[in-house]
Amino acid sequence: MSTNDTTDDADGIDTDETTESADLDAGTSSKCGASSTDATDAPAAGSDPGSTSKCGASTAGSTTDSASTTDSTSTADSASTCGGSTTDSASTCGGSKSAATKREATDEKVGSTADDFAADPGRLVAVGLGPGQPDGMTARARAALSAADHIVGYTTYIELLPEEVTESAEELYDTPMCGEVSRTEEAIDRALAGNDVAIIGSGDPNVYALAGLALEILESKGATAEAVDFEVVPGVPAAQSCGARLGAPLVNDTVSVSLSDHLTPMDEIESRLHAVAPEGFTIAIYNPWSRKRRENFETCCEILLEHRDPETPVGIVHGAGREDERAEIVELGDLEELGETDLIDMTTTILVGNAETYVWDDRMVTPRGYESKYDY
Amino acid sequence: MSTNDTTDDADGIDTDETTESADLDAGTSSKCGASSTDATDAPAAGSDPGSTSKCGASTAGSTTDSASTTDSTSTADSASTCGGSTTDSASTCGGSKSAATKREATDEKVGSTADDFAADPGRLVAVGLGPGQPDGMTARARAALSAADHIVGYTTYIELLPEEVTESAEELYDTPMCGEVSRTEEAIDRALAGNDVAIIGSGDPNVYALAGLALEILESKGATAEAVDFEVVPGVPAAQSCGARLGAPLVNDTVSVSLSDHLTPMDEIESRLHAVAPEGFTIAIYNPWSRKRRENFETCCEILLEHRDPETPVGIVHGAGREDERAEIVELGDLEELGETDLIDMTTTILVGNAETYVWDDRMVTPRGYESKYDY
Repeated sequence: MSTNDTTDDADGIDTDETTESADLDAGTSSKCGASSTDATDAPAAGSDPGSTSKCGASTAGSTTDSASTTDSTSTADSASTCGGSTTDSASTCGGSKSAATKREATDEKVGSTADDFAADPGRLVAVGLGPGQPDGMTARARAALSAADHIVGYTTYIELLPEEVTESAEELYDTPMCGEVSRTEEAIDRALAGNDVAIIGSGDPNVYALAGLALEILESKGATAEAVDFEVVPGVPAAQSCGARLGAPLVNDTVSVSLSDHLTPMDEIESRLHAVAPEGFTIAIYNPWSRKRRENFETCCEILLEHRDPETPVGIVHGAGREDERAEIVELGDLEELGETDLIDMTTTILVGNAETYVWDDRMVTPRGYESKYDY
Repeated sequence: MSTNDTTDDADGIDTDETTESADLDAGTSSKCGASSTDATDAPAAGSDPGSTSKCGASTAGSTTDSASTTDSTSTADSASTCGGSTTDSASTCGGSKSAATKREATDEKVGSTADDFAADPGRLVAVGLGPGQPDGMTARARAALSAADHIVGYTTYIELLPEEVTESAEELYDTPMCGEVSRTEEAIDRALAGNDVAIIGSGDPNVYALAGLALEILESKGATAEAVDFEVVPGVPAAQSCGARLGAPLVNDTVSVSLSDHLTPMDEIESRLHAVAPEGFTIAIYNPWSRKRRENFETCCEILLEHRDPETPVGIVHGAGREDERAEIVELGDLEELGETDLIDMTTTILVGNAETYVWDDRMVTPRGYESKYDY
């Protein structure tokens, strides 16, 4: 995957940054800049022997120089305090190349497994932030963050967290451009080392997001979900945030499809679009466009037009809940040409109406069918 | 639709009560018991000349006797203060039989339209509460409720609201068994009469819920969304609440299908199931079962088994976020027989895995595909 893609993805509001993560090639590790911040503004844990962090060393110097997370000194310290996993994590974008217990990795150097951690495990909670702005968070999400020792996430979302939910955290660990695989393993290692850890993402942890990856990595380490009291705190998905912004486009049966073929082959994505487009579903399209796969978007538009009227209303929300938020309602026939505009990128969610969807007073409305039963 | 169905529906956690509402026949109006409560525990507005409520009369006596909402006195008062609409609303389950400007209703007695209201309109906001428990609410939803003069909703959800968000409200209007059509028109009339009104539901207003109906009724009254500054505040949908409870069953492309054929013909529902079941979608099933249409559930199970392995993991969550919450993970082949148990009713959401979904450590996991790209 290209760095351009990675950059696009890192901007995703819809946990899109979790749908296409950076390759873990050494060539990309220098872009990582994984950094940890002592939330209480004390010196970086790695340079502070008094730190209570059980994973402190992996953060040495990183608050002042993200490149130093690949520094062999912090690596060595890291190995001595975190069962070795953070070593590789820090040196290859938090790349989790070293898991011992699973699949192709079994011949590789053995890194951290559950057995490498002497401490009693802490807790691991995957928290959905919703649209990304603090007021889109649930009280439960807020409480989960306030209770965490470490909060791990993509830099953009860490920066969006209000101070009152981070001030009690011992450490904030964020990675700007790197994949969620490394970030998720980092979170898990910190939990296995005894910390209470919250790993965050926008939207909901179950929508193209981290909840599943966390469980897969826990399994690969020979740990259990029960051991870290694994919990998922749901959030408002991008489709609902964008639907609310547009009016009522999604009130009937709905399907969500990601156009990212990083983890799903494009022929499967096309097959899914062909299957649902002739039916009465409204369709939420995640990850619609990136430079390196503009043809996926074009193919999607063509498939939709094979089955739906060119005048079908389509809602487009760019950067939902952000300062650069833009919402437009267009017609399906005009969608493809918008792919090359800045309205549609990896921060955009597209909602395609069904045959009954109409536009009224600048709102997109999909009737539920009440008008066929009641007079009003 | 039968009263049994209505009762089932009224229990819906997934805004299911909005998917099958009570008929507006006179025969059902006596079950309505629409009631308004002065949130500050002052006498019911209708009997309190000093009340600042602009719709007070429609609530006369209703706090002590719901049947009196059909009382001609309150009706008359209502007509004099609310443009007449609340009259019919109160006398027929809040039934909106009298809208003047739309469809079949044009020959009927003319009730409230936007022109009937002398006051400047207030605001109307549709608020999604999420799972229903206060901690599942977003800060934005909490703020919208705190800012409302009137809060309108199904009794169960009104009762779940924490006091701190209702104490500043002038009135809480709830209907226990009646349809959301009447409740939504009540909310709209109160907004057109000059009140700032929040209409609430569990989950998200865009998921089988009220956002679309509110816009349709506004249009039918000759009002505009802009006139009442119509806003939708999104919430966590039932599929995400249940997904979080089960682990990570929904992290890839997902479809939601309601088995209620009250507003969607069953042959369309069957067609949608046949279309998506052979594809890689995970499937969230809303409104799976009610006494009067148990065959819809049986048909759904049979269609799924035509296309998916009987051992496909299926997550079942009953009463998510409630005291009687129950979650079980079963196999698709065993699903149909569970329809007759109390695990599956109108408060249940069912999540059907795809071909990759597996169960690990009592969690339901749908892999994203990372394991094909990364070693961990």
